[in-house]
Amino acid sequence: MISRLVIIGVGLIGGSLALGLKAQGRVTTVVGVGRHEENLKLAKSLGIVDIWTTNMVEAVQDADVVVLAVPMGAYGSVFAEVAPHLKAGAIVTDAGSTKQHALNEAAKHLPENVFFVAAHPIAGTEQSGASAAFAELYMNHLCIVTPNANTNETALGVVKDMWQSVGSEVIEMPAEEHDVLLASVSHLPHVAAFSLVNAVEKQKNDFYDPFAFAAGGFRDFTRIASSSPAMWRDVALSNKSALIEQIDGLQHELSAMKEALVEEDGALLLDMFASAKQARDEWLESKVQKLGEKS
Amino acid sequence: MISRLVIIGVGLIGGSLALGLKAQGRVTTVVGVGRHEENLKLAKSLGIVDIWTTNMVEAVQDADVVVLAVPMGAYGSVFAEVAPHLKAGAIVTDAGSTKQHALNEAAKHLPENVFFVAAHPIAGTEQSGASAAFAELYMNHLCIVTPNANTNETALGVVKDMWQSVGSEVIEMPAEEHDVLLASVSHLPHVAAFSLVNAVEKQKNDFYDPFAFAAGGFRDFTRIASSSPAMWRDVALSNKSALIEQIDGLQHELSAMKEALVEEDGALLLDMFASAKQARDEWLESKVQKLGEKS
Repeated sequence: MISRLVIIGVGLIGGSLALGLKAQGRVTTVVGVGRHEENLKLAKSLGIVDIWTTNMVEAVQDADVVVLAVPMGAYGSVFAEVAPHLKAGAIVTDAGSTKQHALNEAAKHLPENVFFVAAHPIAGTEQSGASAAFAELYMNHLCIVTPNANTNETALGVVKDMWQSVGSEVIEMPAEEHDVLLASVSHLPHVAAFSLVNAVEKQKNDFYDPFAFAAGGFRDFTRIASSSPAMWRDVALSNKSALIEQIDGLQHELSAMKEALVEEDGALLLDMFASAKQARDEWLESKVQKLGEKS
Repeated sequence: MISRLVIIGVGLIGGSLALGLKAQGRVTTVVGVGRHEENLKLAKSLGIVDIWTTNMVEAVQDADVVVLAVPMGAYGSVFAEVAPHLKAGAIVTDAGSTKQHALNEAAKHLPENVFFVAAHPIAGTEQSGASAAFAELYMNHLCIVTPNANTNETALGVVKDMWQSVGSEVIEMPAEEHDVLLASVSHLPHVAAFSLVNAVEKQKNDFYDPFAFAAGGFRDFTRIASSSPAMWRDVALSNKSALIEQIDGLQHELSAMKEALVEEDGALLLDMFASAKQARDEWLESKVQKLGEKS
């Protein structure tokens, strides 16, 4: 049971966590902190937070657990601002998409008597803001926590328990491994979706609109291109080298397909398409099986 | 009213057309032709076809309308095989994803007293086979027909009417324009999805499985990578030059994003992500509006 939980950034991620914890009766008071009063008022009216404020310093003073759910680019300034006002033994955690950056910024700013645990719930939609939050967002999803040598074991337990209570399967791994993994299955698809939409958009003119002929395949392929640009700028920058490597890998595959086309090598194209289909179908199958085992 | 409709290839595309026409009472007899008896029997049991045969020559002899719903790579051999057996005035049409190839193959093989109309319903799922077919597949979707100077006006009218009757909005454009358009909003996303899955798959080993950490974004982004490899090999080869240009365009955008990352140019990344989001959101909005107007 968390007595006083402070959520900094009451959007899809922070808001859904609050709703999930409330639904499970795992929290007494949720305090929502943000810059936009309108969003905070909405969060209050939706039952996401009990109290809201734009004053971060005031909010964190009595906090037992503080959850950062803001873009990665804001971590440094948020940590610096709250650091002098946290009580001894307070637990600070986050839900950001890259973990080395989170650990580095926390180590730089937070005092030793405050315990930071880096976490990343692998869930989300392309929506944002408090209105997008829902209690079931994390149900049956993975949440990766990335403790290091400095992580307090008790705090780690509290954070793991928090994510498990909203339905997540929590696993631990080093932050470096997390960042490389997520670069491939999450950050790269986002960059590719943004890139593809831009490539198509540049072909558009007053007489010619390729988007008018896009259908379901395009819609699903580009769904994540509707994600928050500021959030993804921060993710990309905070995972720069791993993401660059992933972009190189995709470019390599695209070049191979282009080469096969130039050579009109149908057998090679078929091989490449078939291996992708097999990998994707197997992945989906294992995912479905896993959900089946849980229910 | 079509008296005798022959569907060559009773999968998602051909099967859904048959079901849609039957649901609207627009066809008397549907004859299903294919190579796999099991699929044809299934099509019969699902009420998709009234009669089935693996004998293409026999099937087309009394046909009023023949619909090719086979991979583009089979067009030449199918046209060649049926050409001597079609009755004068028979209408032949298709549902393939590239249209210059369809027109070329038809011109090469079909006699002058048979009327070919090239059509492309912009609808589909990643599923295939008769079991995937459903009557509503084409409802509220575009169908592009690409008549040229040799196209018979009456036959064109019959084909347009056929697609309208299953709920499609039919538009006409030159085959060249169609192929470039579809290269950007359909063929490129497929190649990119196949490429991305392969890029991730190559990182997998006994100790490391990035797929285990993939979530909803990855699932939707790669949905089309579960499409039929043979069908897409044929589409890619039959639209080679337009597709190569599109791959170049995507690679250009990916390189620009990589460059912005290397330079840590957050403002440029934000610009690129935001313009993609805006284009994608506007596209979706206009699509929703259009559906709203129709209902």
